[in-house]
Amino acid sequence: MKKIVIASDSFKGSVSSADVAQSAREGILRVFPECEVICLTVSDGGEGLYETLLQQLKGKQIICSAHNSQMETINAGYILSEDGKTAVIETAAANGLALIPKEKRNPMEATTFGTGELIKNAIRRGCRNILLGIGGSATNDAGTGMLQALGIRFRDENGTILGYGGKILTRIASIDESGVLPELKDCRFTIICDVNSPLFGPNGAAYVYAPQKGADREQVRFLDKGLRNFSHIIKQEKGINISKVSGAGAAGGMGAACLAFFHAQLKPGIETVLEIIGFDKLIVEADLIITGEGKLDRQTIMGKTASGILAAARKHHIPVIALGGCVENTKELIDAGFLATFSILPYPVTLEQAMQKDFTLCNIANTTEQIMRIIKNQTQ
Amino acid sequence: MKKIVIASDSFKGSVSSADVAQSAREGILRVFPECEVICLTVSDGGEGLYETLLQQLKGKQIICSAHNSQMETINAGYILSEDGKTAVIETAAANGLALIPKEKRNPMEATTFGTGELIKNAIRRGCRNILLGIGGSATNDAGTGMLQALGIRFRDENGTILGYGGKILTRIASIDESGVLPELKDCRFTIICDVNSPLFGPNGAAYVYAPQKGADREQVRFLDKGLRNFSHIIKQEKGINISKVSGAGAAGGMGAACLAFFHAQLKPGIETVLEIIGFDKLIVEADLIITGEGKLDRQTIMGKTASGILAAARKHHIPVIALGGCVENTKELIDAGFLATFSILPYPVTLEQAMQKDFTLCNIANTTEQIMRIIKNQTQ
Repeated sequence: MKKIVIASDSFKGSVSSADVAQSAREGILRVFPECEVICLTVSDGGEGLYETLLQQLKGKQIICSAHNSQMETINAGYILSEDGKTAVIETAAANGLALIPKEKRNPMEATTFGTGELIKNAIRRGCRNILLGIGGSATNDAGTGMLQALGIRFRDENGTILGYGGKILTRIASIDESGVLPELKDCRFTIICDVNSPLFGPNGAAYVYAPQKGADREQVRFLDKGLRNFSHIIKQEKGINISKVSGAGAAGGMGAACLAFFHAQLKPGIETVLEIIGFDKLIVEADLIITGEGKLDRQTIMGKTASGILAAARKHHIPVIALGGCVENTKELIDAGFLATFSILPYPVTLEQAMQKDFTLCNIANTTEQIMRIIKNQTQ
Repeated sequence: MKKIVIASDSFKGSVSSADVAQSAREGILRVFPECEVICLTVSDGGEGLYETLLQQLKGKQIICSAHNSQMETINAGYILSEDGKTAVIETAAANGLALIPKEKRNPMEATTFGTGELIKNAIRRGCRNILLGIGGSATNDAGTGMLQALGIRFRDENGTILGYGGKILTRIASIDESGVLPELKDCRFTIICDVNSPLFGPNGAAYVYAPQKGADREQVRFLDKGLRNFSHIIKQEKGINISKVSGAGAAGGMGAACLAFFHAQLKPGIETVLEIIGFDKLIVEADLIITGEGKLDRQTIMGKTASGILAAARKHHIPVIALGGCVENTKELIDAGFLATFSILPYPVTLEQAMQKDFTLCNIANTTEQIMRIIKNQTQ
């Protein structure tokens, strides 16, 4: 073993991605003290992802005033890169579902206007490269609020300018981009999105996600009809067909807005992270990649960190071993392409004990060491 | 991997030695379908050991009348080999501690006479090769009862023939072998013994084991004095010094009697088993040996099955991987010479769940498969 890359997700609630890497590194060096070990911090979404990007972009946090999905003024943050050219913005920051108490959730009214304000703020600061993480929104407005904050207007069949929220979608008859922020056309958007839903229909944004955002059955049907209309208008006005694009339904249809108005690519979180950290170059000539997450199972194969690492590694024919606190569906994991999967647990414990930080770190180091010993024995 | 030998202890309370071997074999064949896999049943003591020997010797169970350690008549069994030349006898069969209710235990009176009767029975049937498993006895008579059943008499300083039990030991002044069973001198004894205690002193039979056999502090002191006297008389009459021999204190001093009167070797159980199954020959040209037990820890290194397998394997420079339901003290295990140790647990479970048979078998197969995949990747 001359070179090993460690790129594991955090073991959620137990140890961070960086912690996993350090412990696995220790296990490797016990057996191969001369091995070049590259420790990477990676994550497929949520806090871990933004921390990783913040670190990689040597960025700083910008806090500004914006509206939440109920159009109340709040303070929301985003990341600005060291060179000021790239912003990392999350829907969840201004329009997250978690920001709205359960009894007040209402996707008929909820708007993504605040997210548009953050984008505008970043553009005004000179950013032209925007990474927009969509997901976990309180909205079902197909991103119309975000577009409105950027100067785009939606009119009904009488030409009247429409207000905010999912309720306007059925009434949109035309789109007026005359007032759009001029810099928008110079911006490059990457949409970080781990949701594969189409915009409308039984697997679409309204039917799958609107209920948890507070919609009743009648409203779900109405919102779905609205999303369908929005798709129709976009096709009619902009010649873009988003009716069947996977991910268009993410964040209550924001995916659709990003596709149609920002000409954006939708990318899984892990893919974005790997691109930004230059993973492809870092793993050149690696003999092995070690990845992991708290729970390895069939979900792991569906676009999570470990699976993203695997996809990147396979392009270079580098074997990937996955470690987990909990390993299920081993056969599926192997069939997906992992060289091997190992649970790090040494003996029967409760979930609580299993997640204890020092215990986990020690187990990661020990398990890695055992694997390395097997490898060393074979290469001697 | 052309040839792999599997020789694991049972995972106590969960799966048998044979079950472990079958599951590990399955894991191997998933990766190396052409591999020659040799599955052995092994054990270091207790039921597992006798089952193994019964199987290996193609033996049958002989039941005969004998005395328990309280000199009550019971039925007790031993194993006779197919050819009738070898007997496997356990102290525990006639003189086990478990046969005597707690309130009746008394090592001052308890005798190993019954074990001597079983030996005599086997000799009368023509056996000349006796494997005697000592341990777990209710006695502290230094095996005098066993010797008495074989015709040896102990006299006090007045020449009076002494009775039975630990209480006679201080009074023994001479040994009278005139009435000994004549065939005894033609017999070869192997003593299966996993206890390392010396005969007397602070780590001797009386101080360490007599309390759990029912002796109070005064009796322990008295019994220790008796063991010391017995050692002295043996040296005086037979010219054999057993005062410091490790294992002489096993089974309340039966080790001493075996050493002095049977010219026996004391051997750890696993060593005996490996000898009988011809382990040394079976592992020739093996690429790997897989062993295991329910709980791998620092005890494993002290003469248990896995450690016996390791010792035999190292003579042939064959790497040994140990699997366990529970793995502790990994560093010590590695330092002892195991190539690697792996717990088979896939996720947090209770001890009860961990010991569930089907779960364990599935985990053994899966873990073995993962290890084989790593090996295969290195050998490609």
